[in-house]
Amino acid sequence: MSQPLTATRLTTARTSIFPLRHPPPLCSFLFVIVLIVATFYTLHHPDSTPPLLFPRNPHNPLALRRLFLSSASNATVASYLRALTRHPHLAGTKPSLDTLTYVLNHFQSLGLDDTHLAEYEALLSYPTHISVAARFSNGTKMEFDLNDVVHGGDDDDVVVRPYHAYSPSGSAQGDVVFVNHGEERDYRALESIGVSVRDCVVLARKGESLGRGGIVKIAEARGALGVLIYAENDGGGLGGIERGTVMRGIGDPVSPGWPGVVGGEKLRVGDNRVTKRFPKIPSLPLSLHNAEIILASLGGARAPVEWRNSGRVGWGQRVGPGLTVVNMTLQGELKMKKIHNVVATIRGSEEPDRYVILGNHRDAWTYGAVDPNSGTSALLDIGRRFSLLLESGWRPRRTILLCSWDAEEFGMIGSTEWVEENVLNLGASAVAYLNVDCAVQGSGFFAGATPQLDGLLLDALRLVQDPDDVALTVEDTFKSQNNVIERLSRVDSDFSGFLHHAGIPSIDMYYGADYPVYHTAFDSYDWMIRNADPLFHRHVAMAGIWGLLGIILADEPVLPFDYISYAEQLQAHRDALSKLLQGKVSVDPLSMAIQEFSIIAKEVKDEAKKLEEQAYSKNDVAAAVRRRELNDRMMLAERGFLDSEGIKGKEWFKHLVYGPAAEPESKLGFFPGVADAIATNSSEGMIEHEIWRVARSIQRASKALQGGFT
Amino acid sequence: MSQPLTATRLTTARTSIFPLRHPPPLCSFLFVIVLIVATFYTLHHPDSTPPLLFPRNPHNPLALRRLFLSSASNATVASYLRALTRHPHLAGTKPSLDTLTYVLNHFQSLGLDDTHLAEYEALLSYPTHISVAARFSNGTKMEFDLNDVVHGGDDDDVVVRPYHAYSPSGSAQGDVVFVNHGEERDYRALESIGVSVRDCVVLARKGESLGRGGIVKIAEARGALGVLIYAENDGGGLGGIERGTVMRGIGDPVSPGWPGVVGGEKLRVGDNRVTKRFPKIPSLPLSLHNAEIILASLGGARAPVEWRNSGRVGWGQRVGPGLTVVNMTLQGELKMKKIHNVVATIRGSEEPDRYVILGNHRDAWTYGAVDPNSGTSALLDIGRRFSLLLESGWRPRRTILLCSWDAEEFGMIGSTEWVEENVLNLGASAVAYLNVDCAVQGSGFFAGATPQLDGLLLDALRLVQDPDDVALTVEDTFKSQNNVIERLSRVDSDFSGFLHHAGIPSIDMYYGADYPVYHTAFDSYDWMIRNADPLFHRHVAMAGIWGLLGIILADEPVLPFDYISYAEQLQAHRDALSKLLQGKVSVDPLSMAIQEFSIIAKEVKDEAKKLEEQAYSKNDVAAAVRRRELNDRMMLAERGFLDSEGIKGKEWFKHLVYGPAAEPESKLGFFPGVADAIATNSSEGMIEHEIWRVARSIQRASKALQGGFT
Repeated sequence: MSQPLTATRLTTARTSIFPLRHPPPLCSFLFVIVLIVATFYTLHHPDSTPPLLFPRNPHNPLALRRLFLSSASNATVASYLRALTRHPHLAGTKPSLDTLTYVLNHFQSLGLDDTHLAEYEALLSYPTHISVAARFSNGTKMEFDLNDVVHGGDDDDVVVRPYHAYSPSGSAQGDVVFVNHGEERDYRALESIGVSVRDCVVLARKGESLGRGGIVKIAEARGALGVLIYAENDGGGLGGIERGTVMRGIGDPVSPGWPGVVGGEKLRVGDNRVTKRFPKIPSLPLSLHNAEIILASLGGARAPVEWRNSGRVGWGQRVGPGLTVVNMTLQGELKMKKIHNVVATIRGSEEPDRYVILGNHRDAWTYGAVDPNSGTSALLDIGRRFSLLLESGWRPRRTILLCSWDAEEFGMIGSTEWVEENVLNLGASAVAYLNVDCAVQGSGFFAGATPQLDGLLLDALRLVQDPDDVALTVEDTFKSQNNVIERLSRVDSDFSGFLHHAGIPSIDMYYGADYPVYHTAFDSYDWMIRNADPLFHRHVAMAGIWGLLGIILADEPVLPFDYISYAEQLQAHRDALSKLLQGKVSVDPLSMAIQEFSIIAKEVKDEAKKLEEQAYSKNDVAAAVRRRELNDRMMLAERGFLDSEGIKGKEWFKHLVYGPAAEPESKLGFFPGVADAIATNSSEGMIEHEIWRVARSIQRASKALQGGFT
Repeated sequence: MSQPLTATRLTTARTSIFPLRHPPPLCSFLFVIVLIVATFYTLHHPDSTPPLLFPRNPHNPLALRRLFLSSASNATVASYLRALTRHPHLAGTKPSLDTLTYVLNHFQSLGLDDTHLAEYEALLSYPTHISVAARFSNGTKMEFDLNDVVHGGDDDDVVVRPYHAYSPSGSAQGDVVFVNHGEERDYRALESIGVSVRDCVVLARKGESLGRGGIVKIAEARGALGVLIYAENDGGGLGGIERGTVMRGIGDPVSPGWPGVVGGEKLRVGDNRVTKRFPKIPSLPLSLHNAEIILASLGGARAPVEWRNSGRVGWGQRVGPGLTVVNMTLQGELKMKKIHNVVATIRGSEEPDRYVILGNHRDAWTYGAVDPNSGTSALLDIGRRFSLLLESGWRPRRTILLCSWDAEEFGMIGSTEWVEENVLNLGASAVAYLNVDCAVQGSGFFAGATPQLDGLLLDALRLVQDPDDVALTVEDTFKSQNNVIERLSRVDSDFSGFLHHAGIPSIDMYYGADYPVYHTAFDSYDWMIRNADPLFHRHVAMAGIWGLLGIILADEPVLPFDYISYAEQLQAHRDALSKLLQGKVSVDPLSMAIQEFSIIAKEVKDEAKKLEEQAYSKNDVAAAVRRRELNDRMMLAERGFLDSEGIKGKEWFKHLVYGPAAEPESKLGFFPGVADAIATNSSEGMIEHEIWRVARSIQRASKALQGGFT
């Protein structure tokens, strides 16, 4: 999982049902033995008894779904995760090729219809030297330890030092100023007590809404010389330090907007179109421990009242500048590296040219047990189970792709280049994109979706047993604990290109939130089995939900899309915007467009119901044409929200309902163009224009849903 | 037909087989009687004898085509044209509503599946006062007569005074400078003899490659105060004056990029996004007679050698400035007007959600007998004949739309707004757009097409008898006379939005070229029957070709698209570009992309051949799916040439292979972004980037043609 550009993740801390503790070595050993035995049993059993396992008619949807769920294997998933996380596998490094080979071999050995690589060259960023030293008021100096792990001797075991990818090389020396979360309102609070950060080094703690790229961007605009960022959630007490990218926008920086294929056009690294995506001032992550040393040493004014006694910042905290000077140095290198996506194909029988795409990235900052290989192991298990279903005679109606992306951590590069290369065919033929990044971070099911998929998502949750309570389904616990399906405006995983650039209906799912070892050296297999999913029940639940969504979307003759749900969500967005605007700008264009959309959505639902109820004859060409025609309209409707001009200043992001707004403080979480116009205090005319643009995008969606022409 | 932004029309003058003469009144009267009798016979005969006229199996393609051709009626077409051209019918005026009613009633009376209006509000431009006066060296003054017709008393008969739509109101007074065709090279020639046009009024004669908007734009940039434009082709000696628009870009200026629907967003007229599309200096058209009075009076240097003795400019011509001062005044008004497109639908039986669109505009500067109602009468007759085919039991496989556009003369406004409103569905479901504007201007068949339609076009020409030689087909004469299918880079008729903005494969056709009464008061029914098509044979031939193209595209199970032809054309474009660049910038990216495209085109052709040869069973769902899938790929491939960023500075134009280049002198006629970069002396890096963009668009087309994903 990458840095959110505009993060609105749910952040309610949840208590893990598996408290943090180190199991004794014997316990671990026995556990591994049990897993191995279980794996062998599961892998070999089905092959020997297909007649018993598989019903005569595997095309009965209910039986097929049950069969899929019953073919789960915790031990197999565990074995995948163990293999994937043996070494750190940062994109562009040698050990990352081992995970590539592992995934590629896995899919190939399953005998799916096709497994191939989609490779690109991309400009990646690595550190060569980093240092941070402080000089305190008493004249003492301190050189900080910037590692969160002791390196082993083996080259393959080198965990990259904590750094910010694409931060420029350079040194910054200056008084330290503590800027809280580094948001605009934090700087305004500092201004009100007379504190400026000009020519200072700012120290920020990661907050809930602003990502590290945003923190650096604002600090740079305020005249800071350098940025140090720490997380209060200190790797669960392990001393982890959070790596991450600070690049603006997503995708390969030297092929902006087009696929970075081998032999294709690449901009020079010094080209303005490249450098504008990198910060101008250096930044580094810092451990909580080091940050608190600096915080304790600061002079200057006392922190604005609203910052004090929040998190770990105390009542007496001073913000500087004064007393402590920091000297930070970062030497990095930008390197063109080959990156490798894996695409495995299960060809559809009746609509081979319609696609359901499941995707997860493979590259990790360190060992990647949570991020992203909990998802990868689920994807590999889905592949295994789909292969079993195929052997039983199943063949999905539509084509299913299982995708393993590379270089997500540098800015969703693998998936973005692929989307850019395939954008036309995606627009014409992709039914949905189902993303899982950190499949298991802890407890509790979370999901984001485009609203026409809400009902389908809940249907799938209803079919899967809750991993933490055998008496319940995931739907039961989801509804009692969380019950909010997020909207996908954030830009922090591979769905971004699919949804924000190509307009593909998308789902993103994860178990747990805000896990402490995020992007640290401690995101390891050991951490996973000790803290987040000892028996891999949650992995299995996620694989179950994800695979079922794939099966249903690929198999249902009429696509299970509910645009009434979308209309209701748009209506709620309209209401929230209207409240924020307090009548200063009219939202009538939205109201009218949503009203029309709503009516058409109802008509389409009725039409779908009728077609669903019709008897289904294989030779009925006319019925097939009617279903296809309706499905195409439902597939296409999401593309209506795309606008070829895109979001102002971020033109690559074309979706006007969900996408990144520059300013987290507007807190709209939707209509990014409107949110930007409001946050930047644009004229009423400009806000009105942005509202019109959204309204027209809804009208386009209506027309797509309705079909035909005016 | 509107002003070409970048015109590369073939301009070889052709001798009409019907020499220009006035037939005696009795002759005209008898002719009308013959037409009326013939009309009655044709309209009433088929209804009474369907069993004889229509074969048992109307779905036999050859029989159907023969039936369509045999149902032609010269007299009926003539009656349509007579009715449409009774009054001048400029868009936004009252008499234009009569033509709307006529067309609407016609389609409705045919009982087609649906006939509806698609209405918009658009900012149109009309003159309220115009004057041009000259003061000569001898002190005499002269007020020019700016009319080309004596107005009748009836309000409906008012021909609008010759003017340039969207020229700003204002006066300009200054020395006259003759600038030849007003191209950049003409100004460079003037510079070389020490002549500047700063603070002068320029006088330009319309040339072959630069349209009136371009003439004004360059004059404005050179510091001229006003522009007078004349045509040497003086309405065939009738003293006609050429009206036209000088707006930049196409479509409604107050809804740029979005549909100007009633109740939708409209920019203020003073908004920069609106005013940048209008010239800053006034311009007016002038008759040849008046222009020659001015030309004869000029002092100053003698014209550059290359201008002399070309057209009507003599050896001794002087260019000014000096001796003659002109004072020109234009008062105009910009008015929001409702415009009305008519869309008639013939629903497809097997693929109702795939569309073949036939379109022609209805509005005219004056009576519009050539421009555009020769095309309208052909369209109405196609409607009539399709209706007969439907009665016989025919039903096209795909849906056919017959469209009558409004306000084309102001800048393709009716079709552009419609394309903008329907762009998503067009992209997803439009197979082809077939445009006819001036169906008959004179003799000789001309056509432009996107290259995958070349073969189909020739096939259709082969089926239609040459209107001027009963022993030959149109293909025979086309091949012996012209034999060049133009490429559609020009922006002078309604195909522009379909091709340049929406990427729909398109054809544009006309009989004759460079007719003398273009946009003058003399473009009347009388002129047509006296000069261009006395017996309406050419109208019938055009309706035959147009209708056949519609039938074939709508009926063929496998779309008759030939992408090998496109690959060859791209290769020829590459070669021409390579020659122009003389190795300064590499065209290798194009070579590689075209090579790949060529290979895939061949594979697709083989695949199409196999599917065509397969026996066709109505109940074979799998075969239907395979055909549909192939057809979708062939339909989609043209969209690959679209780029969401569009052409630099003209971002609405998204097609990177065909579209308007600012500068006619590059003479490429394709790759408009590359042409612009070369013509504006951009850096080699920028030219290279534009070449890469075209190469990537070809790669997108390849991927669409191939289907699936990398």
